[in-house]
Amino acid sequence: MINPVLVETVRGGIVDLRHRGAVAVSDADGRLVWSTGDVERPVYPRSAIKLFQALPLVESGAADRYGLNDKQLAFACSSHSAEEGHVSTAEAMLKAAGLGEADLECGAHWPLFSQQALIDFARSGKTPNNLHNNCSGKHAGFLCAACHQGLEPVGYVNAAHEIQRQARAAQEDMTGFPLGDEMGGIDGCSIPAYAFPLRSLAYGFARAATGNRLGVERAKAAKRLMDACMANPWFTAGTERFCTRIMEAGEGRIFAKTGADGAYVAALPGAGLGIALKCDDGSGQAAEIMLASVLLRLLGQDDDLRVRLEPLASRTIRNWKGIEVAEMRPVSA
Amino acid sequence: MINPVLVETVRGGIVDLRHRGAVAVSDADGRLVWSTGDVERPVYPRSAIKLFQALPLVESGAADRYGLNDKQLAFACSSHSAEEGHVSTAEAMLKAAGLGEADLECGAHWPLFSQQALIDFARSGKTPNNLHNNCSGKHAGFLCAACHQGLEPVGYVNAAHEIQRQARAAQEDMTGFPLGDEMGGIDGCSIPAYAFPLRSLAYGFARAATGNRLGVERAKAAKRLMDACMANPWFTAGTERFCTRIMEAGEGRIFAKTGADGAYVAALPGAGLGIALKCDDGSGQAAEIMLASVLLRLLGQDDDLRVRLEPLASRTIRNWKGIEVAEMRPVSA
Repeated sequence: MINPVLVETVRGGIVDLRHRGAVAVSDADGRLVWSTGDVERPVYPRSAIKLFQALPLVESGAADRYGLNDKQLAFACSSHSAEEGHVSTAEAMLKAAGLGEADLECGAHWPLFSQQALIDFARSGKTPNNLHNNCSGKHAGFLCAACHQGLEPVGYVNAAHEIQRQARAAQEDMTGFPLGDEMGGIDGCSIPAYAFPLRSLAYGFARAATGNRLGVERAKAAKRLMDACMANPWFTAGTERFCTRIMEAGEGRIFAKTGADGAYVAALPGAGLGIALKCDDGSGQAAEIMLASVLLRLLGQDDDLRVRLEPLASRTIRNWKGIEVAEMRPVSA
Repeated sequence: MINPVLVETVRGGIVDLRHRGAVAVSDADGRLVWSTGDVERPVYPRSAIKLFQALPLVESGAADRYGLNDKQLAFACSSHSAEEGHVSTAEAMLKAAGLGEADLECGAHWPLFSQQALIDFARSGKTPNNLHNNCSGKHAGFLCAACHQGLEPVGYVNAAHEIQRQARAAQEDMTGFPLGDEMGGIDGCSIPAYAFPLRSLAYGFARAATGNRLGVERAKAAKRLMDACMANPWFTAGTERFCTRIMEAGEGRIFAKTGADGAYVAALPGAGLGIALKCDDGSGQAAEIMLASVLLRLLGQDDDLRVRLEPLASRTIRNWKGIEVAEMRPVSA
């Protein structure tokens, strides 16, 4: 099955670029409400799955033990831009568990998400450490969960560590998709990365949004994390990031989380729907347009959210002189 | 017609990303020697066409009048990394024609091609100007050609300016593809961008490599530019850039030039072949692997070039800790 073209870039009247992909929209009973492309083949959600990976942090009692607030819980689900407030949040979470930057095993990288942020960072004379890794919030969450449970923190990124076993079990439970050994890759931040059908991911996020068919504690934890993200979009991403803009536009009605290489998940808690998509070629920009586009499809024609989402569903590309040269736009599937 | 998958990324045993594209290999008589995908549909070569755009610089006598050496001619065909030697070359070419940075109309941008180059540039405290634009060599060439011919330099980027008319005519002549008005877009550096079938582009570069069916002066100019590029790969791109690496590996047997959004052209002058390809989704990395892959296809099994090209035909992806997490590799078409 060849996935359809969902986004194209037009330059001078010619379609110049084509991005294929697949999208699943599920309700909390696992019914596929809408889909396009192959939603059964496993794909890597990468960081889009972080909310599920953060469930043990809440369910174990670690979040309460260390007094984590909603900003910190949102940050535990984030792929952040390493702005000052992000770095200090990572530090504060680690400090609450009696740990520090050196305990993180995510690795260091320069700011990824904006050229200006990278320029500013380089000019400040700083060099990146583990705290600046876009996944440091998730890792701080893993470490809090480990310390609270009396687990050895060293090696917490390995598949065999109890923390990763808990994260894996949460992902399996939420998606209802049994993870065989062959589904395991390694993520950018060194933890195991598992692949899921988009259909199962969409189902999982519909359940997280509604609590449907979840145990009481898991339903409570999922709602707490999703509400924390929607209330604190900047802590899940950063200034001008697409997740931030979508959730700010949604004003508590949309949860959205990006993953590397063209993955995106979202939920509309009011409608009881979960969404998962993947751009075949890994383009993050195309995945963003796919997400805004499917959200618009799911909203009523007179929903006042439309006017805030429509500008996010296409992109005018300007050249170095500011001249409009191309447009990236959705293709109706 | 749906183009085939030519490059894929595998992570944890699963194909995670797929890049489709089309490739044309032509001889200098216009015979398609090998192809895959749709090579008849016009696509934008973008900067991959720069050698043809530089023909009037040589043919008009401007290159000789201003004493441009082979490094400067290679630079006129370049998409450079704005390293120090690139910026000074742009300045020297402009100075030869009695002009300076302010006469360039390409616009300014920060270094594009390497994160480390951007970090170093930002740390130096500099801000980019027109000289740092990756197209400043081509633009310096346009200005030299304009001044030598007594043309008003202001507005040389506009489609109606004589310099752009000459560049357009050279592109039409080399490819044998008549450009209708509807084929015109605007490039990143504000000059007109035209779309061509990959088949016509490949034919054009086979002719440039051989001089076949070209007038004496045009054949001489094309050979002079192509030889200049192959002898000075760093001036056509920059340190560790793919064009540089391919041409260094080729040691005078391969010409290669990248264009934005997944375009690549190349030539094997010894074999009398031209190559043009485009990755459907605009991925530059995938286009690089497509290029190395088609070059390997065209070389004999015992050609000693193979050992230098094979490492360029796939890519191991490592995470922030240096762990191998994925592989980008060609898919046989």
